Amino acid sequence: MSTEQILLDLALMFVIAKAAGGLFERVRAPAVIGELLAGVLIGPHLFGLVGHSEAHAVFQELGAIVLLFAVGLDTPLSDLRAVGRLSLGVGLAGIAIPMLLGVGLMALIGRSGEEALFVGTALVATSVGITARVLADLDKIRAPESRVILGAAIIDDIIGLLVLAAVVGLTAEEISIGSLLSVALLAVTFVVLTGGLGPRLVARATPVLDRLGELSVFTIALGICLVLSAIAGALDLAAIIGAFLAGMAFAETRDRYHLEERLASVYSFLVPFFFVITGTLVDLSVFMRSETLLLAAAVIVLAVIGKLGGCGLAAASLGKKSAFIVGIGMVPRGEVGIIVASIGLTQGILDSDLYGVIVAMSVVTTLIVPPVLAVLLRRPPTPAERKKRSEEIEGVGG
Amino acid sequence: MSTEQILLDLALMFVIAKAAGGLFERVRAPAVIGELLAGVLIGPHLFGLVGHSEAHAVFQELGAIVLLFAVGLDTPLSDLRAVGRLSLGVGLAGIAIPMLLGVGLMALIGRSGEEALFVGTALVATSVGITARVLADLDKIRAPESRVILGAAIIDDIIGLLVLAAVVGLTAEEISIGSLLSVALLAVTFVVLTGGLGPRLVARATPVLDRLGELSVFTIALGICLVLSAIAGALDLAAIIGAFLAGMAFAETRDRYHLEERLASVYSFLVPFFFVITGTLVDLSVFMRSETLLLAAAVIVLAVIGKLGGCGLAAASLGKKSAFIVGIGMVPRGEVGIIVASIGLTQGILDSDLYGVIVAMSVVTTLIVPPVLAVLLRRPPTPAERKKRSEEIEGVGG
Repeated sequence: MSTEQILLDLALMFVIAKAAGGLFERVRAPAVIGELLAGVLIGPHLFGLVGHSEAHAVFQELGAIVLLFAVGLDTPLSDLRAVGRLSLGVGLAGIAIPMLLGVGLMALIGRSGEEALFVGTALVATSVGITARVLADLDKIRAPESRVILGAAIIDDIIGLLVLAAVVGLTAEEISIGSLLSVALLAVTFVVLTGGLGPRLVARATPVLDRLGELSVFTIALGICLVLSAIAGALDLAAIIGAFLAGMAFAETRDRYHLEERLASVYSFLVPFFFVITGTLVDLSVFMRSETLLLAAAVIVLAVIGKLGGCGLAAASLGKKSAFIVGIGMVPRGEVGIIVASIGLTQGILDSDLYGVIVAMSVVTTLIVPPVLAVLLRRPPTPAERKKRSEEIEGVGG
Repeated sequence: MSTEQILLDLALMFVIAKAAGGLFERVRAPAVIGELLAGVLIGPHLFGLVGHSEAHAVFQELGAIVLLFAVGLDTPLSDLRAVGRLSLGVGLAGIAIPMLLGVGLMALIGRSGEEALFVGTALVATSVGITARVLADLDKIRAPESRVILGAAIIDDIIGLLVLAAVVGLTAEEISIGSLLSVALLAVTFVVLTGGLGPRLVARATPVLDRLGELSVFTIALGICLVLSAIAGALDLAAIIGAFLAGMAFAETRDRYHLEERLASVYSFLVPFFFVITGTLVDLSVFMRSETLLLAAAVIVLAVIGKLGGCGLAAASLGKKSAFIVGIGMVPRGEVGIIVASIGLTQGILDSDLYGVIVAMSVVTTLIVPPVLAVLLRRPPTPAERKKRSEEIEGVGG
């Protein structure tokens, strides 16, 4: 494909993805869903307005890297330490049960061990972004359920990435006890070493960083993100794990150097490419076969039951309604499920059927949660609150 | 090339380019030269640490697009109107004479008409960025010579891009009177229409844009930049012309939406790829042949004489020294010459010899100007100034 053709594709994908994302935001649906659906529409399987090439794959990967870098920036180690035992329990239950359900279903229908591992992994990781965004929109970010959800989502993210690293590493070579051990060891070593040392090294470096401009610090952080991503990729782990760890290393100094504001424009430019290109790879025709449609329905049901059951039970001490809220809050898989699906497709482990099933699962779990959570969390204001709010408004007016 | 391999290349190129750029800035040389030389070093022709692929070419192009978008943002139409006749004369003389000298030299040594056109075009456009940066560093941006230089550089940029558009369009097909006319017409129509209407449309849209967030306006501007670049590329003009015009359309509203600050991080991330990848394409061994070395020397001499003579003479009314300063200020070709060279190489018109010669010309003219300009503009402070400055310092201390 010529550079001009690729440039035309990039321009088209960017504009249509942004327009669709904006449209979805207007009706209070997550923008990522709009970007994804835009890709499905203009991709080679449907209208064929854009193609796919090596360069498309790189932009898709780079979008995922910037996305996970941003998620890492939002995950300071200190917050992780402050998260109580409850979040740990909720997080672990939310990993184990969906994983077991996913692997079990795949085994039941006679899929290979590699496929089962990928589907299980896709069911594991909650999308912190979607849930946090909904909680923030409802002004409930400081509610007790929200803190449990966010803490658990962070744990869930890190362990989920660890599982992904192990699965990607494992499926990249023949599975044997030796390779299983060495890959797990490699993944754990990389994550623990980088995750543990990174934030400390950055903290140590602040006197030096303080003397540089904010843009320089941002550039250094971005460089480290690229390098760790490339290393993770070269180690046969997923590149995004490096990006996440790089973000985590700078999470404590995020506000000091306004890294999030600097990242915002890069994010706005590159992340849509991940979703729209991922969308272009979805072949809707797989759902014409009733068995695939059935499989998708089964996976979606397990995805909901897995988190609702696992996390809800683990949070039972909060009371029935709060436990239910926590369970629902952990359901959306969003970009994380899609990332797992795209890695599985690229590695040739998932066929287009299973790829479509996972993407559908991610889209559906992400779409159903915001309205349900809104109903559960939104209650009519008490008369006292109503009075206070009207006083505040008058105070501003006068 | 696999996605992992390309990611590794991108990470390596980014880190080495940024390090080299930073090093050059420390010794007060332009960072772009460091980034370019880093590419020469790690490229396939020398140490072979990175390769070249379709994706590399896209990142190179995207870097140039972001760069020219930034230059466009710095070129408000109103400034262009305010620039006096003197700048117009200086700009036109600075285009005609280097073009004639370049084409003449190529004709003299028996090169083809297409090669001659490309070398001439590479000699035309002054790099506004380098000169403006030096003038700002010396705190001379408001000196009369500086205003003439900057005004002329803007005119020179626009006409230079128009010449490039015509040359690229021309060389993309068989040269005939008909194609010459149609390409010139197409280029002029695109530039005049987009350049003329763009700023007005953006000005009209401000009430709508004001209601969006700053990030949204930035994203829209970036989307328009991508689309105009893709259109320019599809029209067989250079993609960067679209990027420049998109920037120019938003130049008047630049400060209103803090577009430059938003762009800074995207610029810092993507623009280095243009220079470092351009560097990787330079084959230093071409200079082992004495004829290529001789040719490079000749082109460099003509590049200096062309601007110094053309612009200096056109600015003669300012007095000898000021005219000399204006002439010197117009000498650096910087990124513009390199962009022309990379387009010529990609289109298969320039061989690696001529490509190397043009890159060498851009590097040398860019490197020699800052120190010369510094000596010409920097004069010892008068006793009165010295007294005032020491008072100011005391004032701050007390």
